[in-house]
Amino acid sequence: MMNAPHTTEPQPTLRVALLGCGNVGSQVARILLEDADNLAARIGARLELTGIAVRSVDAPREAELPRELFTTDAESLVEGADIVIELMGGIEPARTLILRAIDHGASVVSGNKALLAQDGPTLYERADAAHVQLSYEAAVAGAIPILRPIRDSLSGDRITRVLGIVNGTTNYILDQMDTTGAQFADALADAQRLGYAEADPTADIEGYDAASKAAILASLSFHTRFALENVHCQGITSVTAEDIASAKDAGYVIKLLAIAELLKDEAGDDGVSVRVHPTLLPRDHPLAAVRGAFNAVFVEAENAGELMFYGQGAGGTPTASAVLGDVVSAARRMVLGGPGRTETTTGHVPALSIDMVNTSYYIGLDVADQPGVLAKIAHLFAEHGVSIETMRQTIHPAKDGGEASAELRIVTHRAAESSLAATVKHIQDLDVINAVTSVLRVEGI
Amino acid sequence: MMNAPHTTEPQPTLRVALLGCGNVGSQVARILLEDADNLAARIGARLELTGIAVRSVDAPREAELPRELFTTDAESLVEGADIVIELMGGIEPARTLILRAIDHGASVVSGNKALLAQDGPTLYERADAAHVQLSYEAAVAGAIPILRPIRDSLSGDRITRVLGIVNGTTNYILDQMDTTGAQFADALADAQRLGYAEADPTADIEGYDAASKAAILASLSFHTRFALENVHCQGITSVTAEDIASAKDAGYVIKLLAIAELLKDEAGDDGVSVRVHPTLLPRDHPLAAVRGAFNAVFVEAENAGELMFYGQGAGGTPTASAVLGDVVSAARRMVLGGPGRTETTTGHVPALSIDMVNTSYYIGLDVADQPGVLAKIAHLFAEHGVSIETMRQTIHPAKDGGEASAELRIVTHRAAESSLAATVKHIQDLDVINAVTSVLRVEGI
Repeated sequence: MMNAPHTTEPQPTLRVALLGCGNVGSQVARILLEDADNLAARIGARLELTGIAVRSVDAPREAELPRELFTTDAESLVEGADIVIELMGGIEPARTLILRAIDHGASVVSGNKALLAQDGPTLYERADAAHVQLSYEAAVAGAIPILRPIRDSLSGDRITRVLGIVNGTTNYILDQMDTTGAQFADALADAQRLGYAEADPTADIEGYDAASKAAILASLSFHTRFALENVHCQGITSVTAEDIASAKDAGYVIKLLAIAELLKDEAGDDGVSVRVHPTLLPRDHPLAAVRGAFNAVFVEAENAGELMFYGQGAGGTPTASAVLGDVVSAARRMVLGGPGRTETTTGHVPALSIDMVNTSYYIGLDVADQPGVLAKIAHLFAEHGVSIETMRQTIHPAKDGGEASAELRIVTHRAAESSLAATVKHIQDLDVINAVTSVLRVEGI
Repeated sequence: MMNAPHTTEPQPTLRVALLGCGNVGSQVARILLEDADNLAARIGARLELTGIAVRSVDAPREAELPRELFTTDAESLVEGADIVIELMGGIEPARTLILRAIDHGASVVSGNKALLAQDGPTLYERADAAHVQLSYEAAVAGAIPILRPIRDSLSGDRITRVLGIVNGTTNYILDQMDTTGAQFADALADAQRLGYAEADPTADIEGYDAASKAAILASLSFHTRFALENVHCQGITSVTAEDIASAKDAGYVIKLLAIAELLKDEAGDDGVSVRVHPTLLPRDHPLAAVRGAFNAVFVEAENAGELMFYGQGAGGTPTASAVLGDVVSAARRMVLGGPGRTETTTGHVPALSIDMVNTSYYIGLDVADQPGVLAKIAHLFAEHGVSIETMRQTIHPAKDGGEASAELRIVTHRAAESSLAATVKHIQDLDVINAVTSVLRVEGI
């Protein structure tokens, strides 16, 4: 234990209401109780946990907490609080309770990414008008301090791109596939068995969880409000062991990335693409080394250059650290006075459709081993304005009386989504093509 | 360019004075001028660069700046400013000018690690008393947002250890030695030729620059003020190509680390060890992959677990990003009102001497190839209470009529500095020892 400071004056008290007592909430409650003296010393006021709103008072909890703290009456709890911590998840009643807290002058700390991505603007505006703080570091990348650095530390810079591994479940699955050669279904089952994936894994594996986080990251990075509907979202369910093996062989690793990127639209004006999709990264890219259930966010800014933030993206105790950082900041501000403004939207950059995005592509083709095949394919790419960066061919000799075939792996220069789609469509019609085995985007080259 | 927002009301103006116009200062001035509209939109006030104090108005600059901004009268410039940016470096006149700025009610942004490490407490106290901000993100790890995350994001957690690669020059030199097998002197000459090391490299290679940063990191991490005199400092001049090769062979990389660590003293009370020394890290540790002139800071906290912050640790433009982040934050606070308090020292943990530090050690020995040698050495370690984790022996056959010898590499469990020193002293007296070739600390295992 760090020594408690010597205080002589009685300290003021701030009333803290906790909504939800799951994985993260129970750890937040435990730390508020166990570490009360240290927190008081840092804040200059004591935090009094006045209650924990839950659906059932008798449900089992991860931490041992005094039974008298629990209540099912969330509304009353919220009305008496200086700081409300919302860790219920879901849209309702979380949304109504947060608005009620703001209307009663409480500052709010939330980890509710789905609510923030869907209805953030309503919440931010209401908090601004009420001059209270609304903070949500825990909503993106668990314990990693990423929102505050983007909002404050980089406020004098211009962010141009954010690439994030923000979902531990999919990163664990892809990492297992990469390490063991497993197929998606087996890696998912393994993750479920170990508790890294939920019984219904849809929100993770379809990319919806990452998409909420992408919307939040984009909003803070580009000072413009983006919602879930602005995010192009593709999950990892169609990534095969063959994709991974082929990418590995070519020096890449496949990661599910949340991407927010400043681009030019057709008129040359600024726009932002916000998207989630499986992405090839060179194995020496800093994000490529982020293994298992860890998260990391890679930020490119005009002046700062490349930055990376790495740490635990989930888990009750790590995420509780982010929640408590927000609670202490809000409490300090109450003690010292000062503004409640936490979010600025000073930009007016539109969200761009995925069609406007130029990335490199990785294309795997199973082709006939005949003279002239490479020329036919290269010609077709050129016709569609897609420039080839590298082309690698592996010959599979004929066996069992079949014909010889070849595996062709193409990495393109940056090309428009639409041009690439047209190229792939026409390639499939070539008589020398047996199959298009992979079409994946590449970043970081 | 991001679209400028539509504003109707006239905006207030904040006067910004810049002290120093070197590598970083000239980029700060350029961005303040070029990006004025965007900065104004984010702040809600225009930043007017009122002048740049320099020693010589006619010295060559890295950025083209209006000549009329330059002045040699720093004192007058400071007195008329709302925000003073100090990028002169050195103790005086920087210290006097910062105190004058504070006394005139200006907020101060500084990148002066030497001054902050030597006399930070005076500056913080004066800024607190005057209710102005003193911020210095640029003083540690250049562009990487690290001080604000430690101070704010982790304010609800308890940091237990910070390991930082915070000096790009030494990281470049060690990286070159690791990659090419070069000796220290050659790698240093190479770094000087490429501009990664200065003509007088003392401050970098002796670890003094890293020691200043270690003192600042320790102060923020442990809410206690540590100064340069509390830092045990050992540079990289004695690291040999043989050390690096031997470490590499055993699966380690050698990095110069700035370390701040919460420990127990002999009475079981909390204490902090702040130190800089060459350190072996396992090659799969996240810091091991930080190459060349990049910086990274690895933070361990009780709840958050392991976090890492990575980016460019030097360079005019990246460091300017950190300076401007502080400027925008200070300016926002002026516009919105609020407290100037930037630093809390609520802890009272003493700095521990290096003798109190337990780390693992890597010891390289050149020994006679005789029966019983291993037993003698193992016995001597045991006598001094130093427990051996791994012991690897490589035999060098006799040649040219000489005797056969063996290379012995020992990694210990955590041991006290004093026990280890006594062990090494007695080992040298053993008749079977030809030489003690390396004694290096190990972290991250």
